[in-house]
This record gives sequence, C-alpha cells and structure tokens, in this order.
Amino acid sequence: MGESIRIGVLGASGYTGADMVRLAARHPRIEIAALTANTHAGKQMAEVFPHLGVLDLPTLQNWEEVDWGTVDAIVCGLPHGTTQDITKQILAAHPRTRIIDMSADFRLRNTSVYASAYGQDHRAPEIQPEAVYGLSEHYRAEIAGARLVACPGCYPTAVLTALLPIVAAGIVDATDLIIDAKSGVSGAGRGLKQNTLFCEAGEGLSPYSIGTHRHAPEIEQEITRAAGEAVTVNFTPHLVPMSRGELVTCYVKLTNGASPADVREALRRRYAEEPFVHVLPEGGVPATQAVRGSNHVMVGVFPDRIPGRAIVIGALDNLVKGSAGQALQNLNLAFGIEETEGLMQLALFP
Amino acid sequence: MGESIRIGVLGASGYTGADMVRLAARHPRIEIAALTANTHAGKQMAEVFPHLGVLDLPTLQNWEEVDWGTVDAIVCGLPHGTTQDITKQILAAHPRTRIIDMSADFRLRNTSVYASAYGQDHRAPEIQPEAVYGLSEHYRAEIAGARLVACPGCYPTAVLTALLPIVAAGIVDATDLIIDAKSGVSGAGRGLKQNTLFCEAGEGLSPYSIGTHRHAPEIEQEITRAAGEAVTVNFTPHLVPMSRGELVTCYVKLTNGASPADVREALRRRYAEEPFVHVLPEGGVPATQAVRGSNHVMVGVFPDRIPGRAIVIGALDNLVKGSAGQALQNLNLAFGIEETEGLMQLALFP
Amino acid sequence: MGESIRIGVLGASGYTGADMVRLAARHPRIEIAALTANTHAGKQMAEVFPHLGVLDLPTLQNWEEVDWGTVDAIVCGLPHGTTQDITKQILAAHPRTRIIDMSADFRLRNTSVYASAYGQDHRAPEIQPEAVYGLSEHYRAEIAGARLVACPGCYPTAVLTALLPIVAAGIVDATDLIIDAKSGVSGAGRGLKQNTLFCEAGEGLSPYSIGTHRHAPEIEQEITRAAGEAVTVNFTPHLVPMSRGELVTCYVKLTNGASPADVREALRRRYAEEPFVHVLPEGGVPATQAVRGSNHVMVGVFPDRIPGRAIVIGALDNLVKGSAGQALQNLNLAFGIEETEGLMQLALFP
Amino acid sequence: MGESIRIGVLGASGYTGADMVRLAARHPRIEIAALTANTHAGKQMAEVFPHLGVLDLPTLQNWEEVDWGTVDAIVCGLPHGTTQDITKQILAAHPRTRIIDMSADFRLRNTSVYASAYGQDHRAPEIQPEAVYGLSEHYRAEIAGARLVACPGCYPTAVLTALLPIVAAGIVDATDLIIDAKSGVSGAGRGLKQNTLFCEAGEGLSPYSIGTHRHAPEIEQEITRAAGEAVTVNFTPHLVPMSRGELVTCYVKLTNGASPADVREALRRRYAEEPFVHVLPEGGVPATQAVRGSNHVMVGVFPDRIPGRAIVIGALDNLVKGSAGQALQNLNLAFGIEETEGLMQLALFP
Repeated sequence: MGESIRIGVLGASGYTGADMVRLAARHPRIEIAALTANTHAGKQMAEVFPHLGVLDLPTLQNWEEVDWGTVDAIVCGLPHGTTQDITKQILAAHPRTRIIDMSADFRLRNTSVYASAYGQDHRAPEIQPEAVYGLSEHYRAEIAGARLVACPGCYPTAVLTALLPIVAAGIVDATDLIIDAKSGVSGAGRGLKQNTLFCEAGEGLSPYSIGTHRHAPEIEQEITRAAGEAVTVNFTPHLVPMSRGELVTCYVKLTNGASPADVREALRRRYAEEPFVHVLPEGGVPATQAVRGSNHVMVGVFPDRIPGRAIVIGALDNLVKGSAGQALQNLNLAFGIEETEGLMQLALFP
Repeated sequence: MGESIRIGVLGASGYTGADMVRLAARHPRIEIAALTANTHAGKQMAEVFPHLGVLDLPTLQNWEEVDWGTVDAIVCGLPHGTTQDITKQILAAHPRTRIIDMSADFRLRNTSVYASAYGQDHRAPEIQPEAVYGLSEHYRAEIAGARLVACPGCYPTAVLTALLPIVAAGIVDATDLIIDAKSGVSGAGRGLKQNTLFCEAGEGLSPYSIGTHRHAPEIEQEITRAAGEAVTVNFTPHLVPMSRGELVTCYVKLTNGASPADVREALRRRYAEEPFVHVLPEGGVPATQAVRGSNHVMVGVFPDRIPGRAIVIGALDNLVKGSAGQALQNLNLAFGIEETEGLMQLALFP
Repeated sequence: MGESIRIGVLGASGYTGADMVRLAARHPRIEIAALTANTHAGKQMAEVFPHLGVLDLPTLQNWEEVDWGTVDAIVCGLPHGTTQDITKQILAAHPRTRIIDMSADFRLRNTSVYASAYGQDHRAPEIQPEAVYGLSEHYRAEIAGARLVACPGCYPTAVLTALLPIVAAGIVDATDLIIDAKSGVSGAGRGLKQNTLFCEAGEGLSPYSIGTHRHAPEIEQEITRAAGEAVTVNFTPHLVPMSRGELVTCYVKLTNGASPADVREALRRRYAEEPFVHVLPEGGVPATQAVRGSNHVMVGVFPDRIPGRAIVIGALDNLVKGSAGQALQNLNLAFGIEETEGLMQLALFP
Repeated sequence: MGESIRIGVLGASGYTGADMVRLAARHPRIEIAALTANTHAGKQMAEVFPHLGVLDLPTLQNWEEVDWGTVDAIVCGLPHGTTQDITKQILAAHPRTRIIDMSADFRLRNTSVYASAYGQDHRAPEIQPEAVYGLSEHYRAEIAGARLVACPGCYPTAVLTALLPIVAAGIVDATDLIIDAKSGVSGAGRGLKQNTLFCEAGEGLSPYSIGTHRHAPEIEQEITRAAGEAVTVNFTPHLVPMSRGELVTCYVKLTNGASPADVREALRRRYAEEPFVHVLPEGGVPATQAVRGSNHVMVGVFPDRIPGRAIVIGALDNLVKGSAGQALQNLNLAFGIEETEGLMQLALFP
C-alpha cells in the first residue's frame, strides 16, 4: 500500500458529507484530516450523526479555521452556490489541493446555463473550464489528471449511465427521450423542509419540479455531447417514501432499425469491464432495494408495447453512486488508487 | 330516504372487499346482508379484519350457503377467474339481482383479449355482452340500467380519467401515449407473495410487469374507443413503498396545435360538474397523499420541456376510487341513489 | 336536526387543526365559520393542506381579524403557551363562547406543575379553575356544562383510558405503573424539526424525552386523583416510523388478589356502554392499524410471565381520539348533540 | 494473512443466511464454498437475492448434495427444528467441522425447556451439552474452542448485553425485570405470513406473543445464571414498521443503593474494551437508526421518574449483531481470527 491521502470533508453535517465519512473511514488509504460544518462547529460528529459515533474523528470546524495546506484533497458536500467561493479561495491559496465536488456548482460547462438553472450568477467562472464532469465510467482519463472534479447529480448519474452509450451509438432518438425519475427522500438533503417531513413524504407519492428540475440541463448537456446535436429531454422526478434509492425509467424511440435486444447488447458491451455498472440479462428488473448502500448501478432493457420503442431502466443509491460513492471513486482515480478501493460494500437488503 | 338496499359482498376477506364493507357500513341506504369468504367461512369479520371489529356484521359464509334471492345487489371482490362461474350461476338463479363486479372478469369486451391477457378462456362469454364498463363518469347512463357492472381496474380508472377526454377531443396523439404508473402495495391484494412482504417492498422501488400488465389491454380498449382507431399504449407500473395510492404520469404528444393549457381546459370543462374528479389549476400537483382513503381523483397538467408535448398526471386511492369506492358509486347509480351517498369521506392526511 | 353550531378553528395549519376540519366538515350540525393560521393568513386551505382542497372553506386569517362574537365555539389547535393569552382575550370579550382546547395549556390543574413542565409561567391562572379536563368518558357531566374544555394529550388519553378504572377499583398498585409508550410521528406536529424528517424518523425506532415528557405530569394528575394518593409513574415514549397511531403498553402490579381476568372484566364493565372504547376479549391484541383515522380506542389485558403482574395495552389514533376526534366528541357533549355525531368513520386499513 | 476458511451456509435463501453471505463475501479470510436452500436448489443467488447478484457465488444446492468434508465451518440459518437433525448427521460424518448455528435449536441448555417453548421434543439432546451459547462478549473463551456454537436470538442478544453485567453485579433486582422489546419486520424471516405483508405491518404498531415469546426462556436461562437464582422476566415484543432494527427498553429496580449512574458505570466498565458494545454517556439515547447494517450495540441508561428504578435501553440490528454478524464474530473467535475481521462496516444512515 502507498501512503495515506489526507482528506477534508466540507459540509460534513449533510447526508452526502456523512456518507463520504462512512466510506472514507473504512478506506485503507484515506485519512480523514478535517471535517467542517459551520453551523455545528465545535461539535463531535457523534452529536450530529450518532451512527458515526463509533469512529474517532476530528471535531467539526468552521471551514475558515482549517489549514487546507495540510490536506491532499477536499471532498465538498456543501449546498450549491456556497461551493464556488470556497473552492476559489482554497485553490488560490493551495493550488495543488485537489477538489472533489459533490455539489452542483461546477457541473454545467456553460455558466449562463448555470445562472438560469440555479437563479444566480456563477461566482467562479474562471475556474469552470478546468472542472471535469465526474461521471467516472465516462470521463475516467480526464478525472485522473483533474484538480477539480464536478461529480454529477444523482439523477444524471442514473440517466446518463443508462442512456449515453445508446445515444452515442445512434440507436435511439436523442430528441425523444422521456425520463420518469423516482427518488428517495434523502435526495432532498438534511435541511428542514415541510415536504420532507415523515408525515408529508410518508405513505404517499408525488411528482415535483415537473419540467423545471435543475438536473435536466445537466442531463441535456451530456446527451447533447453524445448526440452531437442540441437536445431537450423530458425529465419528471417523483418523491418516493423511502430514504435511499433512485430509479429512472427512460422511454426511448429506437432508430436505425435497432431492437430492444440491440440496446441491451450495446449497454452490455460498453459496461462489460465496469465493476459498478451491471446490465441485467433479458427479464432482469432493476430495483433500488438491490443497490441500497452500495456503489452499484443496475440497468435493464425492456421492449415497449408500442412498436419501435424500448424502456431502459437504471437504479442506484442516490447517496452512494449518486454522490459520495462516485466522489470516492473519482478520488481513487485522481490519486491513482485502485478504483474500487473502499467501495466494495454490498447492498444492504432487506 | 327510500328503503334499504340489501347487499352481499363476495370475497370479504380481501382488501377491496373490506373497503367495500367499510364504506357500505356507513351508507344510510345500504344493509350488509351477507359476507362470503370461503377460506374463512364461519369466522367473524373482527377476526379477519380487526379494524371492522366495531361493527355488527354477518358471519362470513361460503358463497354457496347464501340465499342470494334475499339480496338486491352483490358486490364481488373475488380474484379474477373465479368470478365468472359464480356470476353465471347466481344470475341464472336470480335474474333480478344486480352484480357490481370489482374483479377483472367482465372488463374486456372481447373475450379473446381476456383469454390472452389472463391466460385462460372466458367461462361466461354469453354474459359478457351485457356487462357495462363501470367508469362512473364516462358510462353513467349505461350503469344506471345495468344488471352487471364491470368496475375498471385501479390503474385504468386513473389513466382513463386523465386521458379519455383529451383523446376524444383529438388534442393528443393516441398512438404515442406513454404511461408511467406507480402504485401502493395494496394493489397486489392480501394474498401471500414474497414481493409484497414488508421487508421486500419497503424502502425500495421497483418496476414490474413491464409491458405485460393486464391493465394495459383494458386501457387500450377504452382509448381505442375514444380515439376511433386501434391503439397500443406504453404502460409501465412500479411498486411503491406505501399501502394505498396510485399515481399515473402520462406523457402525451399534442396535436392540432393544442397547448398544455388547452389540455387542462378540456379536462376542466369535461369534469366541471363531477363531484369526484378535480382538475387542478395551473401549477397544482396531484399527490396520492391528498386522496388517501377518499373517492376523489386529482388531475394536473404540465408543459413538457420537449416542445409539443405535455404531461398529464392523475392520482387516486386504488382501493377507493380505484375499486370499492367506484363500485359503491356505481351501486348508487344502479339503484337511483344520490351518486355521492356514502362517499363523501375526506382524505386521511397525514 | 337542530341548528348549526358555528365554529372557528384556531391554528388550522397544524395537523390537529386540519384533522378537526376534516371531521367537522362532514358533521351535520357544524358550520366552519372561521379558520386561523397566522403564518398563512390570506391563503386557502387547499394551499396548506391539499387533501382539504375539495372543500369550500373560509380563507385562513390572523386570529385577531376574526369576529369571534359570531361563532358559538372555538376549537384551538395552537401550540402550548400561545393558547393562554388568546383564550383569555376571547373569553373576556365574548363570555358565552365555548372553547374546546386541544393544546396543553389548561390540562394541568396546578399551574405550578404547568410552569415546571412547560418551562414558563402560566399566563391565565385565573381561568384555569374553570377548565374541565376533557377525557370524554370520564368527565362527561362536567364537559356538558363547561365553557373551557382542556382536551387531554394523546398519550394521556390512551393511558388513562386503560388505567383509570383499575386504579380507581384498587386492583393495581398505583405506585408501580410502568408505561412504555409508542407514537407515530404526527404526534410531533407539523413544525420543522430534524428528528421528524422522513430520513431521520424512517426505518428506525428511538425513545425520546425519557422520564421528562410533558404528558407524565398530566397522567400523574389523573392517576393521583383516581388512586387517592400522590403517585409518580414511569412514562417512556418512543418514536415509531408511522404517521398516525399510538400504543401504550402498561405494566401493572396486581393488588387485592386480582387476576388479569379481573382487570379485563373491570375494564369491560366500565366501558360496556361506551361507543368508542373497546375492551377486547381474552387474547385480543390492540394494534394501531385497527384504529387509524377513527375515534376508537382498543384495550387489551394480558397476564405477565411474572406472577402477580399484568399488562394492559391501549391503542388509538393520536390525531383523532388523541386530539381532534375527542375534541369533537367534547364539542358534541358541550352542545347537547349526540356524542357520536360526526365520529362514526371507520378505521382506514390498510 | 492465514489461509482461507471454507464455509458453507445452510439456509442461504433466508434473511439471516443472506446477511451472512453479504458479510462473509467481503471477509478476507473466508471463502464461501457452498450455499444450500432446498426449495431453491439449482438457482443462482442472484435470482433469490438480487442484491447479491454482483458476487460470484456457488449455485444453491440441497444440503444433502454438499460434500461437507470439504468445508471447515458451517453457518446454519435454517428454521428451528430442522437444524437438529442436520447438525447431528453432519457432525457424525465430519466430526471436525465446526457449526455456527444461527437457529434456535441449541440455545436452551435444558431440552425440556426447549420442548415446551418450541412445542416439539429435541431431536439431538446428546449434542446439546457441547453447544456453547454464542453471546460473544460473555462466552468468548468457550466459543474459541467450541465445535457447536448456538448463537443467541436477536432479542436475547440485546437484552443480555444490557442486563447481564448489572444482574451479575447485584445492583438490580433480577426478579423484577420488565422488558419492552421492539423489532423490525425482518425478525420474522422471509417466510410468507399475513402479518408481515407490507400492508399489514406498515403504518402501524402491534404487540405480539405477549408473555409467550420463545426468546423469553432464553433470556431467563442467562439471567438466572447471572443472578444465581431462578428468575422469570416480563418480555413483551412489538412489531415495528421498519425492516431492520431492534430496541429493548428494560425497566429495572435498583438494589443495594445503586443509582442509575452506578448502572451506567458498571456497564461502561464491563464493556470498556469491547469493539462492538457502546455504552453511551449520560443523556445518550440509543436508536436503531444508528446501528442499521452494523454489528454495533448501543446501550443507554436513564433515571426513572419512580425513585429507586432505572431504564436500560439497548439497540442493535437484528440481522447483524442479532444474527449473522454475531455468528461471524463467533466464527472469527472459533478460528482464531481477529474478532472484528469483516465486521467493521459502519451503520447505513439514513
């Protein structure tokens, strides 16, 4: 084994920050050197996340108090908007620090798309060009050398894993993609909102942000790239009464004479060597239960009753492959560590 | 008030049967005269459904033991397949008894479609022609005079309420309907199946019967009728970790220059006088939480990111408007009782 | 039928307020004349509680704006502490208005116990003496004539229903009462708190307020009265991942040679004529599923493995019999309406 | 590292069997050599447990087909009753094979207590004497040398961890132990039962097996041993709408002048060096959320409102420390492997 990578986690009091701690704490090459959470500075993680109370962790600090020169990498789990300023300042002071960003701040290459989607101007547009979009299986080479990795949103990770190879192969019509997405409640974070109270989200199902969700432009950015033409997609998320898990049901129109079996085969070939992407055999049905707590993605392909169409379904854990797990995968890539290190935990079922 | 209608409930040990008892027991014009459940014959309902233990109800019987000549109407909550024989025998012996059937046995007008969807020949094809499809808001006149009402499936009720008027109006393309459906677990009934165990269905989401669900031909039958041409629809159901509730997200292509607002307006006009169908104003989001335990359906219309398309969403309680509630609504219609009688219970939230 | 009772609901944006609206809207003798919710003044209830959107209700107002002289009764669902001032002011201005208070403000006869339990001085101690403790089955006569009814807490309703008769009968040792209580999350209200988020309360169980819950002094007040001696009880609540429902498991030491069967018999005799309290036969197990959404309480008695002890279990819906339902029952009593009016809804299961 | 231990898992299609596979598959010293599941023989684990589909595992077999001479240890996850015969046969044929039994068959030292609790005679009474009760922290030395380890039930593990040291220390009255227990639904196994259906167990809470649960004699066996006198305990389990997790709230009477702080201190001292038992500081509240998926137990001690009493609360994951995790811990002990090997996974929250 090589030496330890010292990391700091920005925003350790959120769900993605905590899941990064959960994974990193058991990673043989990582040392958790700093944890920040400005509203909880001075507390122990055990107070904020009792399930991490069995660990010996640094006390939570204000991010300004940390000596960032002593860490090799920063994993950022801050809300969007705040990440830009902090990243800019830290990179200015410590140009050799690598930043693995789980927030949305550097995912959109076009900062005017960012401004329109997030309702505020980008505050570090000069850094944006060096940000690599951290969809591990598709940007592996770029991630390896990057100083700033913008990890994809949870929904885009599921959707793009399912669709990018078949859009690129030209066997589905990129202008007719309908994506019905379903997420567990943890996707909304730990902030206090009425709609994520147990009594509001429990025993019920509701769509939200119909046509306006911020992950849609992110999906469109990558689909556009793969398609070679500007595309708009339907993206309709729903809130499901479960904590973890995300499933995307993608309705696609087949082109160039492709069959559903061709779609499945294209995906299998593309991901044959990938440790975390599993294209199921015919009839195999992805379910979030099968990936809960793990970094795995399951993909299944089905014929549609309507001729000439197919259904491509992807399932992942929004906090792992959809956030902290993929961030750790990218951190492994960035530091030349075995990509699966610290990520081989199996799903927890039931 | 008029005199009491004496009813018998066939299959009172299932969820739809029990929900019929729940509603009928508080209906001012109904007397529950007989309850059958062959595997529980001789028991009290309190043993089978403790929540009904506060009622004074007839003992459960074998259906063969009941003197059906003494009841005015039978509500049938048996599994599909068994209903045909029993209906045939009872109607032969008691031609004036009305049957409100919550099972699937008489929903499909074409018995060869039945045979192919349900994997068995229809055993009472000679009765099929007189069965009226019991979508109350769309077949009111026929239901009023019918001896045999085939209540729609839960999914078809949601889908057809959302789509029939706009298909009939020619403002959506009937050949390009994509229906992503989500249901609570009670839709699968009270039978013992591994996938409906708490530990299997809880904290997770999975699609099922993709492209093969038996409600698809039923939906197609009615859409075909409204469209005036034979159509095939996409229908993809998902199992959601909640007991009650169903939500259908329908992706439609607009035709004849219609806008999403036109779609909403067409629905509002069609249902303006309906007590149970609520077309929400712009921005209003249907959610199953808002209809739990009630006979109401909520419908919302949204623009799609893809130009020329719209999203129509319907939500209902699968055991009420999707089954026992609509059956009671039809029973009211059949006997000339005020249609809303016994059905004004508000949704239970949280 | 007599004339309508015009009511106003103070705090209609909380769960207990909303459940009062749900019940009162279908009560044949009640007219909902005013709804207040200061943080939502000017909104429609449909915006705050979509499941009530099918009703035609008054717009939400600030409580100061309502002309309280035009209502016959006020049902108060405000948080504790705020109720005292408002009650005082309204009663001073409108001495003939009746107040049915669902808050905790007037439950404790001794205002110094209030001060210590709620951490603030009582602000209307001069009104306290006329407040009647609204445990309907035990204070029926007093409630009938009362101007101010202090409805019990949800836990005390369950515990006292199960224990008062047997403490009063001297067949259990009032100084050795151990009450393990479990509640759904709605008991914590609709306010934003981290521990009632779906992701925090879901898929887990935790005790809370161990030894310090504010309902303990309330239980002790009534047990002391029944026992004729000052008692302290164990009361240990737990938060359960469900929205509605409360179950109390009471461990009692038998005295005077009583057996568990004697305990059951004493309870059956006491509640034989009560429409809402159901003492189950031997072996009958109370469960919250059987009372969800209803005003019923189920009570069961079991022998303990330890000789000379018994287990008395009560189950109710915390928002109905534990709050809005009992409030409506008291309102019926106060106005000489049939006690069960508007409360005969059966439990919603599943 | 030493060589691999080859294990076979009997009953791999149940929840405890599957959790053993989940843990063992990532254990650096274990090789899964055989998996049996008689009703699923010939299938792949991926068909039976899709979440394990990412592993390369042996095909499921009938247990009679396995060459048990080629494995070093058998972990048995069969239902009680069937284990006795199989164990007897295997040990007769392969006397050097070690058996780690997760079933109930060898937990009760007195086979007549077994017969009375399980309703059938013990079929291998001659082996019973060599079975070691596998409560790892309390029988470590015996487990190390044992050929047959009878892992405790999930409830007994939680209860005994919380109570054994303080009973042994004589600071609580062993004849007055009241144990209110709550479990997630996975404790009932994967068999098809009506009460574990999602719609039955969801959104509700119910006690079960009141006074008659089979874990009570097991708890009494060990408490009796620690107390040095025969004791009977109250043990009242409740079914909670969650998949994993168990919490026991133990009400104890203090003796010999002990205070709640003394109880906490006695527990802290006893478990100070234990990697999996965490006695929380004053005010620390155990919750199942904090141990989900992990082998940790959390214990908290609280004063009672009734003087001279205390409340001791334990929380664990019933499938891990309550079953497969403790079995693996015992397997580590039996083979001289570091006790924590393969068990350091942190809890999955949310």
